[in-house]
Amino acid sequence: MDLNKFFKAKNIAIVGVSKDPNKIGYNIFRNLVEGNFQGNLFLVNPNAYQILNKKVYKSLNDINEEIELAVIAVPNKLVPSILKNCGKKKIQNVVIISSGFSESGNEKLENEVKSLLEKFKINCIGVNALGVYDAYSRLDTLFLPRYRLKRPKQGGIAFVSQSGAIGTAILDLITTQNYGISKFISYGNATNVDESDILEYLGEDKETKVICLYLQGLRDGQKFIKVAKKVGRNKPIVVLKGGITQETSKIVYSHTASLAGSYEVYSAAFKQCNMIQADSLQEMFNIARALEKTIPNKGERIQIITNGGGYGILSIDAIIKNNLKVAELDKKNIASLKKQLHNLVTLNNLIDLSSNATSNDYKIAIENCLNDNNVDVILLNILYQNPLIDSSILDIITEFNNLKKKPILVVSTGGEFTDNLRKSLEENNVVTFTYPEEAVRSIKALTDYYSKK
Amino acid sequence: MDLNKFFKAKNIAIVGVSKDPNKIGYNIFRNLVEGNFQGNLFLVNPNAYQILNKKVYKSLNDINEEIELAVIAVPNKLVPSILKNCGKKKIQNVVIISSGFSESGNEKLENEVKSLLEKFKINCIGVNALGVYDAYSRLDTLFLPRYRLKRPKQGGIAFVSQSGAIGTAILDLITTQNYGISKFISYGNATNVDESDILEYLGEDKETKVICLYLQGLRDGQKFIKVAKKVGRNKPIVVLKGGITQETSKIVYSHTASLAGSYEVYSAAFKQCNMIQADSLQEMFNIARALEKTIPNKGERIQIITNGGGYGILSIDAIIKNNLKVAELDKKNIASLKKQLHNLVTLNNLIDLSSNATSNDYKIAIENCLNDNNVDVILLNILYQNPLIDSSILDIITEFNNLKKKPILVVSTGGEFTDNLRKSLEENNVVTFTYPEEAVRSIKALTDYYSKK
Repeated sequence: MDLNKFFKAKNIAIVGVSKDPNKIGYNIFRNLVEGNFQGNLFLVNPNAYQILNKKVYKSLNDINEEIELAVIAVPNKLVPSILKNCGKKKIQNVVIISSGFSESGNEKLENEVKSLLEKFKINCIGVNALGVYDAYSRLDTLFLPRYRLKRPKQGGIAFVSQSGAIGTAILDLITTQNYGISKFISYGNATNVDESDILEYLGEDKETKVICLYLQGLRDGQKFIKVAKKVGRNKPIVVLKGGITQETSKIVYSHTASLAGSYEVYSAAFKQCNMIQADSLQEMFNIARALEKTIPNKGERIQIITNGGGYGILSIDAIIKNNLKVAELDKKNIASLKKQLHNLVTLNNLIDLSSNATSNDYKIAIENCLNDNNVDVILLNILYQNPLIDSSILDIITEFNNLKKKPILVVSTGGEFTDNLRKSLEENNVVTFTYPEEAVRSIKALTDYYSKK
Repeated sequence: MDLNKFFKAKNIAIVGVSKDPNKIGYNIFRNLVEGNFQGNLFLVNPNAYQILNKKVYKSLNDINEEIELAVIAVPNKLVPSILKNCGKKKIQNVVIISSGFSESGNEKLENEVKSLLEKFKINCIGVNALGVYDAYSRLDTLFLPRYRLKRPKQGGIAFVSQSGAIGTAILDLITTQNYGISKFISYGNATNVDESDILEYLGEDKETKVICLYLQGLRDGQKFIKVAKKVGRNKPIVVLKGGITQETSKIVYSHTASLAGSYEVYSAAFKQCNMIQADSLQEMFNIARALEKTIPNKGERIQIITNGGGYGILSIDAIIKNNLKVAELDKKNIASLKKQLHNLVTLNNLIDLSSNATSNDYKIAIENCLNDNNVDVILLNILYQNPLIDSSILDIITEFNNLKKKPILVVSTGGEFTDNLRKSLEENNVVTFTYPEEAVRSIKALTDYYSKK
C-alpha cells in the first residue's frame, strides 16, 4: 500500500472547512497556512464562498486540478456521500477526521464507509483520526491550534499512535524539549489503513530512523507480526502497549473498536519481532532518542565517568538492575589515568573525577575509554553546577561523539544553566538524559536490539 | 542535638574566605550576599584585609560579637587549628566544607577532627560537606555559584543527601520547575552530626512537611531505625538508597566512609519505619510533591476523569500494576452523569469526557465524584491542547481542591501552553504530573503511608 501521498501530497482538499474558528475544518486550514505548507489547498463547503480570503468550492467535483489527498471533517452521516465524490474525482487518499462510527457503537455507518473505500480503491487514514503531521513537507491535518499544540522540527523519529490524545500530548512535549520527528500518524479506527500498513511504509521511509508505536489493539495480528519482523530487521521499533490489564482490555475494545488481547500474547509477539517494549510514554521517548542518535552497539560493558560520586553509584545500580555490565578498564589504562588525573577519587569500576573535575579531565578520561577494548559504551555524568566545568566540555564531547567509535551518552540533572548546555549537545547529535536510570534503560534497549538483529 | 542554628543563625563566620572568585570561601560569601541573607557575616582570613568591601578578620578570636555558626572552607590540614579557635570562641556549630579526610583515606585527620569536636562540644555538619540551604532564613553555605545552581523558593519538602552532587542537582531542578523546599542538607562524612540527628531535627521542624533522604550508607543502624520510626509517625519520609547492588556497596564504603550493607537489610528497616522507598531521584521528588500537597488518604479506589481515552487506559494500567483499585461509581451517580454529560464516551470505570470536553464537563464530573462514596481519590487527565478546555478549568480544580475533601491529582502532558497551566495549578497547591504512571505511583505512596501510620 503506497502511503506516500499522505505525507507528500502537493494538492490537498479540505472538505468541511468552515468560517467558524471553533470548527475542526477551519483549524486544519489555518494550521496548514500558519505552518507554511508549500502545496496547494482547496477548500470545500457547499455553504461558503470564501474563508480567510481563499475561494471555497461547493463540491470536490468543482475542482479542476488533480487532488492527491482529501481531508474530510464533516458530520459522520455525510461521510459516505463525500466518499462517493472522491470516487468520481478519482482521489486515492483520504484522512477522515470525523468521529461517530464503531468507536461509539455505530458499526453500520463504519461498514458503509469501509465498503465505499474498497469500491473506489481509496486508502483512508481514520475514521475518527487526527491524521498526520510531516515535519519535512509540513503537511499537517491536525486540527489542534498551533498556539496550544506546537509542531516539532525535523528529526528521525516517527510517532504512530492509535490514540489521538497520547499522540498530540507527546508531540507537544517533544517540541518544547527541542527534539525533532520525521512523521506523526494518529490513525484512529483503522478502517482500512492499519498499524501494519503504516509500519511497512515507515520501514522504507528514508526520513525515519526509529519508529515509536503506541498500540491499544490490533486488527490483524498475523499481518502485524509479518510486517513488524521485516521492518524490525532494518529499523528499531519501540512499542508501548496500552490496555495491558484485564480492566483495560475491555475498554480498549470499545475505545477504538479494535481487538484487544492478553498482554502476554502481545508481549511474546513483540519479542518475536525484536521490538523494544517500553513501560511508559517517557521511556518510549527516551529509548527512541537514544536509538536515533547513538551508533549501533551490541556490547554491554559500560564505563561511567562522573564528577559526582553519588551519580556514579546510582548509574551502576541501574546497570546491574538492567542486566548490563560495568566495564573493567585495562590495567595499563588504569595506571595511565591515575598518572594523568590528579583529582581522581576512586577507580572501583568508576571514573570519579571528583567535584574538582575540569573539562580537560573529562577529555583525558573519555579518550582513554575510547581506546580501551574493555569498554563498549561510555556514560558521562556531568554536573554543570560545578564552576570548573567550562563550556569547552561541549566541544570535547561533540568531537568524540562525531568519531562514532563508541556510543557516548550524557546525564545531567539541573536547571536553566544545565538545560542550555544539554540543548547545545542535543543540537550536535549527542544524546542526553536528566537521570542516570533513563540513560541506562536506553543503553539496554540499544544493546538488546542490535544483539538480536 | 539542637541543630537550629545551622538553619537560623544570625551571626555567621566564614573561615577561609578568599579574594579569588574561583575559591570556595569567596563563593560562599558571595552567595549569602546575593541571596539577601539578613544576618551578619564575619569574614576570616589571616592574609586579607577586605573582600567585596567587607572587613576581614585575621582570626575568629578577633571578632567581638558572638558567632552562632562557623563555615569552614580551609585546606584540610588547617581544620584542627580552626576548631581550636572555635573552642576558644565558644562556637557551638560548624559546617566543614573542606575535604581530604576519611573519604580519601585520611582517617587519622578525620579522627583528630572528631576528637576536637567532642572536646569542645561542637556540632559539625561535614567534613566533606556542602552544608545547608534554608529557603526561609536564606542561610546558604553552598559554594556553587547562583548562576549555575539556582536556589528554590519556600516550600514544605526537606532534602537530605549524603551526596553533595545529587543534592545540588535535584535542588537546581526543583527551582527550575518552580517548586519550593524548606531545607536542604548535604552532610558529607557525618563526622559527628549524622543522618539520624538531621532526621530527628526535621521531624520537629514546622517548616518541613515531607522529608526526602538520599542515603548511601548508615553510621549507626539502630539509632537510625529508632529515630526514623518516631519521625515517620508524624511526617512521611521518602528514601532513595544508593548502592543497592554488590557492585556499588563496595564503592559506597569508600565514597563517604560510611557502612554499607545489603539492600535487603536496608529495605526491611525502611519498611519497619513506614518510610516510602523510591526507585529513582525522579520518583522520590514526585512522591514528595504529592505527599506535601494532597490531603491524608488511606483509600485506594481511584476515579479517572479524562478528555483522552488513551490516557485513561494508561492510567488504569498503572493503577492495576500498583495494586490499587479503579473506583466503581455508584449506580445513581452513573445515571446522573449520563444525563448531564452529552459527550461522555464510555463509563467502563472511566469517565471519558471525549476530546469535545469543556471545562464545565470537568466541573460536573469532579463534583459527582467528590460526592460519590465509592471514590477515594480523583485522578484528572487533562489535555490542554484541546481548545474547548478554557482557563476556567484552573478555578474549577483549585476550588474543588481547596475543599480538601478528597485528593485530586492532575496529569497533563505537553509543551509551553500546558506547562503554564500546570504552573498555575501548582501555585494554587494542586499537585500535577506529566505522565499518568507518575501520578499513580504517588497515590500508591500516599495510601501506603497513611494506611500504615
